[in-house]
Amino acid sequence: MAIPTRIGLAGLAVMGQNLALNIAEKGFPISVYNRSTSKVDETVERAKKEGNLPLYGFHDPESFVLSIQKPRVIIILVKAGLPVDQTIKTLSAFMEEGDCIIDGGNEWYENTERREKEMAERGLLYLGMGVSGGEEGARNGPSMMPGGSFEAYTYIEDILLKVSAQVPDSGPCVTYIGKGGSGNFVKMVHNGIEYGDMQLIAEAYDVLRSVGKLSNDELHEVFSEWNKGELLSFLIEITADIFGIKDDKSDGYLVDKVLDKTGMKGTGKWTVQQAAELSVAAPTIAASLDSRFLSGLKDERVQAAKVFKASGVSDTLVEQSVDKNQLIDDVRKALYASKICSYAQGMNLIRAKSVEKGWDLKLGELARIWKGGCIIRAIFLDRIKGAYDRNPDLANLLVDEEFAKEMVERQSAWRRVVCLAINSGISTPGMSSSLAYFDSYRRESLPANLVQAQRDYFGAHTYERIDVPGAFHTEWFKIAKQSKN
Amino acid sequence: MAIPTRIGLAGLAVMGQNLALNIAEKGFPISVYNRSTSKVDETVERAKKEGNLPLYGFHDPESFVLSIQKPRVIIILVKAGLPVDQTIKTLSAFMEEGDCIIDGGNEWYENTERREKEMAERGLLYLGMGVSGGEEGARNGPSMMPGGSFEAYTYIEDILLKVSAQVPDSGPCVTYIGKGGSGNFVKMVHNGIEYGDMQLIAEAYDVLRSVGKLSNDELHEVFSEWNKGELLSFLIEITADIFGIKDDKSDGYLVDKVLDKTGMKGTGKWTVQQAAELSVAAPTIAASLDSRFLSGLKDERVQAAKVFKASGVSDTLVEQSVDKNQLIDDVRKALYASKICSYAQGMNLIRAKSVEKGWDLKLGELARIWKGGCIIRAIFLDRIKGAYDRNPDLANLLVDEEFAKEMVERQSAWRRVVCLAINSGISTPGMSSSLAYFDSYRRESLPANLVQAQRDYFGAHTYERIDVPGAFHTEWFKIAKQSKN
Repeated sequence: MAIPTRIGLAGLAVMGQNLALNIAEKGFPISVYNRSTSKVDETVERAKKEGNLPLYGFHDPESFVLSIQKPRVIIILVKAGLPVDQTIKTLSAFMEEGDCIIDGGNEWYENTERREKEMAERGLLYLGMGVSGGEEGARNGPSMMPGGSFEAYTYIEDILLKVSAQVPDSGPCVTYIGKGGSGNFVKMVHNGIEYGDMQLIAEAYDVLRSVGKLSNDELHEVFSEWNKGELLSFLIEITADIFGIKDDKSDGYLVDKVLDKTGMKGTGKWTVQQAAELSVAAPTIAASLDSRFLSGLKDERVQAAKVFKASGVSDTLVEQSVDKNQLIDDVRKALYASKICSYAQGMNLIRAKSVEKGWDLKLGELARIWKGGCIIRAIFLDRIKGAYDRNPDLANLLVDEEFAKEMVERQSAWRRVVCLAINSGISTPGMSSSLAYFDSYRRESLPANLVQAQRDYFGAHTYERIDVPGAFHTEWFKIAKQSKN
Repeated sequence: MAIPTRIGLAGLAVMGQNLALNIAEKGFPISVYNRSTSKVDETVERAKKEGNLPLYGFHDPESFVLSIQKPRVIIILVKAGLPVDQTIKTLSAFMEEGDCIIDGGNEWYENTERREKEMAERGLLYLGMGVSGGEEGARNGPSMMPGGSFEAYTYIEDILLKVSAQVPDSGPCVTYIGKGGSGNFVKMVHNGIEYGDMQLIAEAYDVLRSVGKLSNDELHEVFSEWNKGELLSFLIEITADIFGIKDDKSDGYLVDKVLDKTGMKGTGKWTVQQAAELSVAAPTIAASLDSRFLSGLKDERVQAAKVFKASGVSDTLVEQSVDKNQLIDDVRKALYASKICSYAQGMNLIRAKSVEKGWDLKLGELARIWKGGCIIRAIFLDRIKGAYDRNPDLANLLVDEEFAKEMVERQSAWRRVVCLAINSGISTPGMSSSLAYFDSYRRESLPANLVQAQRDYFGAHTYERIDVPGAFHTEWFKIAKQSKN
């Protein structure tokens, strides 16, 4: 038995179990522990079956902790919030100065910062590490976003470099993100971007299905084709897969039997709340969150559809005759252009937080470690990395010369798709809010002058002028009253 | 000197000073206090000038508090947050069991709930009261939203009924909102709705100006005309006024000299964050917040406009030839329909919180007290009150029979306006996200089935089926892999 082991992992649900096996497979002897011991035995069993991997199970926390070489590093993968605090309490009782705990869950970044402080008071190190890739990624190579103690990161850099997804030309999908809760924050925004990607794909599907009348077979073909070009990505790939799967309980395709209600677990909500907190517009991500909320109101929607159908507004408003191939091409371009907007929002949100917290995050490096392992992995991230390589201070991805060119090439198709959807009574909240974002951002003069005039009118909030510096207030009401008399 | 006075007011900035004069004018002798004493003297001076009103100034907190009849009621109007705590500390030192403090500021509702508890421990009562109407409203009749101790409310109900705005047929613009922080929460959403209204009006202005080429004189006429119909409201009225005002520093109109940067003070942000927290879609309000954020990036927008103009994308994309009268009529309808969506979102947000907190808020009664005094006062609120009178459990304003009919009548014009804007390169984020909200809400089947299938594919999150109850999981990857081989 290779004890002391190199590292420990506590919390053997799906993610923990697979990550532990991954680490063992890469040649790092690992101790594992779980509160309910059956999971420990299950993991040990799997380690045997999957090639006699150097994985050692423990049924009590003390022997688990003591089995690890010093300075000890323990990854915990339990539910965010209270369970993390409880696990830390249990394990740290047996840990010694210089040892380290790494939380691999989707934790709220401020909890990580609180724990890092508490641990530091006891001489222990702490990392909050976002891990993306689901079950499959955890087992074979996830994208990993460790933030917190740099010293702790150096303890396990060699492990993370081997365990994470390996992408040809751009290396392992891990990097030291930054101080404090930055690893959790970046993972949170990653998930917000993921919400956006999924919503935009769903809208593309909706337009092609509802307006273009494409069959599932055709959708399977279209998405498979798209996955060979600029949209090449994990989510497009699995979408193609989904359209190809028949239902085993009835005739037809499984996707048509899935109820149109989307669940969620909180990171999308946090992303939207943080965007508001940091004064960063993130309408595409917000639209995808709202779409999940509205999807949940299935019964209300069924009722509303009845109310409006009775008034002559059908589900698909007007049958539009469209050229299928033109539509498919337009939708692809609309999807890609919308996606650029969504990533621009997410990246700017990360930068705003980085500035606020002094994290000094490298946006191009984040794009690099998202290229493999994680749910949003895509060839497109190369272009984002390139944009930040060209100019690390780029104000917005939209104005990078390459992306700007791509936007210009796609905007006509994009406008056609959104208008077609609107005239068909199909909502494309993600694509249309992305388009509004683009058109607002590239607009020298917005109608915000009127809003500010209104604010000064009723609240004396003052305004700036386009021609003279300073803050001005006008007695709008008095002047208007005089001119009325 | 009418001492003991009936009530006290501390914090004599613009709102406090005007509210104190309003109370005195309605015949209630009032004591006033402010930390910097010059404000006290200024207020006393104004009270003399404005008709020897029964208002008495005090330079120290003790004599101020002791000058009020028991049980003492003191309204405080200071900045939200710490200044409220400090003022409470100063004043409560001299207060006795059964006395009451009313915070009239835009306070975060949880702060009010914390203070209500702290006060209760000392035998003191507490109210958090939203006050809307700006300077003018405070002086002549605001809309008031008191929440917290019902006992405290009964102490001053007679004052509030006289001091608040009086609307023929629907009475004084005040009601006991509910327990805890409900008064602050309702005022917060009121402000969120106000953001939405202002943004939608700005977009109407933008389309009429940029696409319809209307002059300020024409805009003044159009908004004046609109203010005679279904859009009759304070914000439409002041918008008409604004377009009529000439610049005194140059030729032309003042509105054209106002910089297109909109400030904000936090309640809109809170509204959007709470909507996310409560799983309520509020895209119109979110779009108005994002528009304020983007308006603030003036320098970036100027740069982006250059980048895209160089690529052939002009500020106004394509010159569209439009029938001016048709356009004006369409924009009016689009504005009204979007407004209904925005209020539906705000009302549902209030209801969600009411359910969570057990506040038992009456949505129709809120519409009633917003009919006068406040910034969003509008004839349209009568229709909202009517909808909730008809059905207090109405799931969404959109499916009220009268509103549904209005939506159906306006939807074609609405779709025309949004598409026209899109094809002109003008963003109408509020109108287009309202339309997407409408089209999502009235849709029996959204493409959320695909999103849920994706979630089950990569995260084993399970899905429901349309035909069989239960939670299902499919090994999508394995099936797809098999069919590929």
